[in-house]
Formats: sequence, C-alpha cells, structure tokens
Amino acid sequence: MRCTGRIETRQVEELYINIDPIQAGGRLTSDAMKAIIAYGDGYSVCDHCRKPFRLDFIKTPPVDQFHRELATFLNMDIARVVPGARRGFQAIAGAYVGRGDPVLLTALSHYTEFLAVEAVGGMPLEIAKSTSGHITADAAADKIEEVKSVYGRNPSLLFIDHFDYQFGNEHEVKGVAKVAHQYDIPVLYNGAYSVGILPVDGKELGVDFVVGSGHKSMASPAPSGVLATTSERANEVLRTTASRGDVTGRTFGIKEVEMMGCTLMGVTLMGMMASFPTVRDRVKRWSRELEMGEIVVQALRSIEGTRILSEYPRKHTLTRVDTRESFDIIAQKHKKKGYFLSSALKDRGIVGLIPGATKVWKFNTYGLSERQVQHLADAFVEIAEENGLAVSR
Amino acid sequence: MRCTGRIETRQVEELYINIDPIQAGGRLTSDAMKAIIAYGDGYSVCDHCRKPFRLDFIKTPPVDQFHRELATFLNMDIARVVPGARRGFQAIAGAYVGRGDPVLLTALSHYTEFLAVEAVGGMPLEIAKSTSGHITADAAADKIEEVKSVYGRNPSLLFIDHFDYQFGNEHEVKGVAKVAHQYDIPVLYNGAYSVGILPVDGKELGVDFVVGSGHKSMASPAPSGVLATTSERANEVLRTTASRGDVTGRTFGIKEVEMMGCTLMGVTLMGMMASFPTVRDRVKRWSRELEMGEIVVQALRSIEGTRILSEYPRKHTLTRVDTRESFDIIAQKHKKKGYFLSSALKDRGIVGLIPGATKVWKFNTYGLSERQVQHLADAFVEIAEENGLAVSR
Repeated sequence: MRCTGRIETRQVEELYINIDPIQAGGRLTSDAMKAIIAYGDGYSVCDHCRKPFRLDFIKTPPVDQFHRELATFLNMDIARVVPGARRGFQAIAGAYVGRGDPVLLTALSHYTEFLAVEAVGGMPLEIAKSTSGHITADAAADKIEEVKSVYGRNPSLLFIDHFDYQFGNEHEVKGVAKVAHQYDIPVLYNGAYSVGILPVDGKELGVDFVVGSGHKSMASPAPSGVLATTSERANEVLRTTASRGDVTGRTFGIKEVEMMGCTLMGVTLMGMMASFPTVRDRVKRWSRELEMGEIVVQALRSIEGTRILSEYPRKHTLTRVDTRESFDIIAQKHKKKGYFLSSALKDRGIVGLIPGATKVWKFNTYGLSERQVQHLADAFVEIAEENGLAVSR
Repeated sequence: MRCTGRIETRQVEELYINIDPIQAGGRLTSDAMKAIIAYGDGYSVCDHCRKPFRLDFIKTPPVDQFHRELATFLNMDIARVVPGARRGFQAIAGAYVGRGDPVLLTALSHYTEFLAVEAVGGMPLEIAKSTSGHITADAAADKIEEVKSVYGRNPSLLFIDHFDYQFGNEHEVKGVAKVAHQYDIPVLYNGAYSVGILPVDGKELGVDFVVGSGHKSMASPAPSGVLATTSERANEVLRTTASRGDVTGRTFGIKEVEMMGCTLMGVTLMGMMASFPTVRDRVKRWSRELEMGEIVVQALRSIEGTRILSEYPRKHTLTRVDTRESFDIIAQKHKKKGYFLSSALKDRGIVGLIPGATKVWKFNTYGLSERQVQHLADAFVEIAEENGLAVSR
C-alpha cells in the first residue's frame, strides 16, 4: 500500500513486533501522532513567536514551559532541544574543543562522538573497557594520566555513555565524572539509550551536560534531542552571539551560537512535547521493562551454544547475543542460509533483526507488552527446536 | 480544540489566509502529510538500512534516488539533506573557515550565516548593499580588495543570498560568484527563499554550494534542508571520517564528518521526499506567483502614504512595506492602537502580520490562490478606506 505515488506506507509498528535495537524507544505515542498531524507544516511553532524571537521563549504552544520541564526531568538547570543527540555533542565540542585538543571518549563510544570531536579538529582518545565490558573510573583516571604525560595537558572534554550502543552495558558514570572533575575536565553524559526510557538525574551523576535523543528514546520524530546543562556551563555552551555587522552595525539579539539560533521549529519539537507526559511517566516503569527483557534473554540462554555478550544480569533492554554456536551452525546448511532466522521470525510476526544475521546481533525489547515478549521468547525457542538445537528450560 | 492534554490544535492554514513571511513555502503538501503519518516514528527510514549504513544509500524508501533527484533539480553534482539551511551553512563553514579567517557575508545576510561563521571562530564581514538595496558584483570586488589589504589574505568563504530575508530583493549571484572565483573563494548560495519555490540552476549561477531550506521553501517539516555541491567540492565538505579508535582500532566507514553521519532519519526526510514531485513542478509556476503578489502590492501602493521598500517591480512574493505614513497614523488614534490592523485583517480571515505592526512589516503571498490574493488586496484597501486613508485605484 502506497501513501504517495512512490512511497510505500510504513506499517512496521502496526503489523509486527519490532525488536530493532535503535527503533524501540522512538516509536511515537498516540499524542505525538496527533501533534505531528496538527503541526506538520514547516515553521508551525512560530505563529506566536514574539520578542526576543527565540524558540525557548515561545508561550503558545507552551515551548517555554516544556524547556523548563525538560531541565527538571533531568535534574539539570537548563535545557535546549537539538536536532538529535549528535547535534548536542557537536554544540558541546564546539564550545570546549580546540584544534589539536585531546578529548576522551571510550572504547564503547558511539561514532557520532568521534565525528563531533573530529569536526572541530580535536583528537578523540578512548578510555579502555574492562574485560567485563565496562568503562570504569579507574580506567578513566589511567587514561587522563596517560594523556597528561603524552600531550602535556588535560583532555578538554570527556564523553561517557550511560549505556553503550554495542552491549547496552551500564558504565560508571558517577565515578568517571568524579575523576574527570578532579582534573577540571567537563563531562558530557550521552543518554541516547537512557534519557526517556529510564530515570536520569544529572546532578546526582555529577555531570556537566546531559544529552538525549528524541528519536532514539523519547518517543519523538527525527531529528530531535535534548541538551541539558548546569547554570555554570550554560554561559559557555549556550553563549549568545557577539557578531556585529561591520558595515550595517547589526547585532543579533540573544541567538545562541552553538544552537545556530532556533533548532526544532515544528513537527519534531511538537512530537517531543506531546510525548513528554508519557515519557516522564514511563521511565518509572524501567524495572518492569527489565523483567520483560529478561524473559527473552532467558529463552535465548536456554538454547544450546547461545551466549549473551552483554553484561548479565541485564540492566538494559538492548542486548547483544552471540549465536555463532547455535543459529549460525544451522545457517551453514539451511536452504535459506543466514536468512532462515530473520525469515522464521518474520513468519511469526517479528522484525528488526538484520536479515541474514546469525552470528552476533542485537535486539531491544523496550516497550513490548508481556504477551509480545512471551511470543518473542517462544519464537526463538521454537525456531531453535525446529532446527534441531537443544533447548534446556 | 486540543490535540493533546495541553497542546492546542494548530489550524492556521485550515482556517485562515496566512501571509507570514517565513511560513508560506513550508506548508506541507497533502502527500507530505500522508508520509509524515506513515513515517512519524523516530528512526522510521532505517528499516532497510544496510551496508554501508548511510542515509543516502537507503533504497527502501527510495532515499538514494531522492538524493540524486535533488542534485539534478538544483543542477549540481551531489546533494545531502540537512536539518535546516543553517546546518548546511554550519557544515560548509566547518570545512572552509578556520579561526580568525575573514569570511564574506552581505549587509542583507540572515543571522544564521553570522552564527555559522562565529561558531568556527571566523570573522564575518559584510559586503555593502547598494542604495537600491542590492548586493552587486562590484561591491563584492571592493570588499574582497578591502579584506585583502586589511587582513593580507583572501576571505576563505563567501555567502550570497539569492533573495534576502529583509526585502526579498534579488541579488547578483552570478556576478558575485564570478568575482569570488577570480580570487579562488568558494561561494555558498543561500537559497532559503528560492530553492523549492522558483527555478535554481547552480551550475548556471556558478556557485560551489547551493543550500536550501525544507521548512521554509520545500513544503517540508522542520528542521530540514538541502546542501548541494560540485564533485570537486564534495571531497572537502563531504569528507568521510578519518577517526580511528586509539585503543580499539575501530574505524567508522564512510560517515561524513560535517554531516555528523546521518541527518534526517524519519519524518523530516519523508516529508521532503513526498513533497518533492510537487515542489519540482511548482517552481515552474513562479511567474504566476509573482503576478499574484503584484495584485497585493498594487493594492498597497494605492493606499495614500504607503511605500513598498522592496525593489519594484517585485521579483519575489516576500515584500517589505512601510506604512508609517498610512496605517501607523491611524494606529496613533485608534482605540485598538497598533493592533487595529492585524485585528481588522483577522476579522477578514487573514493572519501572519505580527500583531501590533503598523510601521515596517513584511508579508508573503506565496502559494495563495487568485481568489485569496484578491481577498487580501481588497482587505487592505477596505481597512484603509474604513479608517479614512485615501485610496487611488
């Protein structure tokens, strides 16, 4: 079914159980769907933009209030919306990283952190992960000392992901931030896999910046996200323009340089705003989400040869699995080859596994109902059994 | 009527004739409205993202084809989608402007051009406008020579708006580009008020970059836009990442640094794509749009004391008007003060004039039907006559 002349209607979320690792937290709420219909047009939030002409001052719709609520939600002082978490990284790197500056990321950092540093000419350097797949305060301290001795100065910024995109493991944010602050290094918390799905308290974590993704974890359209910071850091990362036209003498009010002025002028912001009451509420049910994920993890663990590569017990619904000794062995002789697994899942109404993947792959159960999760767990076991893999439950 | 608990349904385009200067070209087409409903969820275009895992390679929906069509549409070699024209400026400034570099803008440049230069530490300098309100090749040459003598080097980049946001005047893009290229200065064409509403031929204009705005002029949701360039410049502004994890040895494929990887992963891109067939067609009807605008301009000119500040005859549907000697005189004694004009317009079903504005203001007739335009023209005349201003038609 086409929705326009050449665009097929997307029905993934309507017709299937979707376990795609990056899509789970970004499904719209029904309120967001209503809001994007009402605010689809380009500059739709600008009808009542008045002096000082900046997005976060708009009162109708209540954009100003939403900004305050976002800051409160993350227990930070001030918040801005940005076109994706990556644009939050870019703004912060723009404010703190100079050409040639060493910057700390981690061995599990998302590629967009590297790009944000590379774009401003900084030098991204990784904090090693432990053998258990964790970024620890000790490893951060070691790396800072190494950088100091090699470069003769401190890193100008440190990125730490609360939960990484590879394993969904939880890292020592609080400890890492404490260490970084002993060296006066500002700390950027990457909450792409946390803000909007589990409780995040920026002050408690002791970080300077909390960055989250609307389309990844806040039930919002892409590209959207949040950058929250402290009063102290706001003057730096949210500095207002000092430009003045040399011929005209024009100045540009209180536009913020790293935000490029206004950021999300329509559908993306309204989607975030409409989903926000639900998002604020749903983070309280994180333990329930973990219980649901556990049902699937247990089913996978019951299949002979299958290993969970993520930390266990799971602290996140995104999980990395190694099925080289189970489903991949089947793939080698199956007539559908590696496609047998995604195909068998799809026959059972399940999508989101990359077609052909039978070696190392990821899935995310976030937002699935108990019935859906049970169906998913049963599907993996059934497919294993049908293909002669031993199952011990 | 609320669309969610606390968000009023926006019905501006359904209930009124909207003459807001920035909103006219960004109203969605009905195809875009259908597409945003189908693709509202966060990462909705990523269902079929396969190696090499980059937005412009996605075949389903046909994102790859759309990228090629965008380049063809602008007569450039290669195109990318970006979160608004300002993010296109930012990418290009990031690639060409170093700290302390002089960069040429114009006396009519949009503030986002200043911010893009300021963010990378460049020095924005304005080319003066002529007494008629135009940016000429001669003025560009003068400014380049001035910069050379003051800074001892050429500007590293030059921005030129085809039509400026203040007057909607057309500037000497082709001549300015020719002059700039004599000094080997790359030229960024700001098509925020042209790409998507009138024909733009980048090669014919001789520019290095064409940047357009989806939400301003391509009937698309915000934030969206396009950056198109030549094969030669693509290697610079669209360079792929050279980052390598120092601990893990990871590399990041063909992600483009200035794009921050992928840009518009869902509703914004799909809105652009769904509107594109209409947009590609509508630019051919630009002369008709100018005729419509002329009806309103004539009506305003017929009102005693009213001056058109934009160039005349009009070459754009965005027009700047001075009514200090007409409507503003009424405002001084009217019981509604300056609000009488916007109020009288609203009584006639017309919105988009900043409430209270009676001195110098802008309007845009883009996309209005002949009947709507006639109603708008009549409304201005009626309001003038009702308030005792002489009208000569």
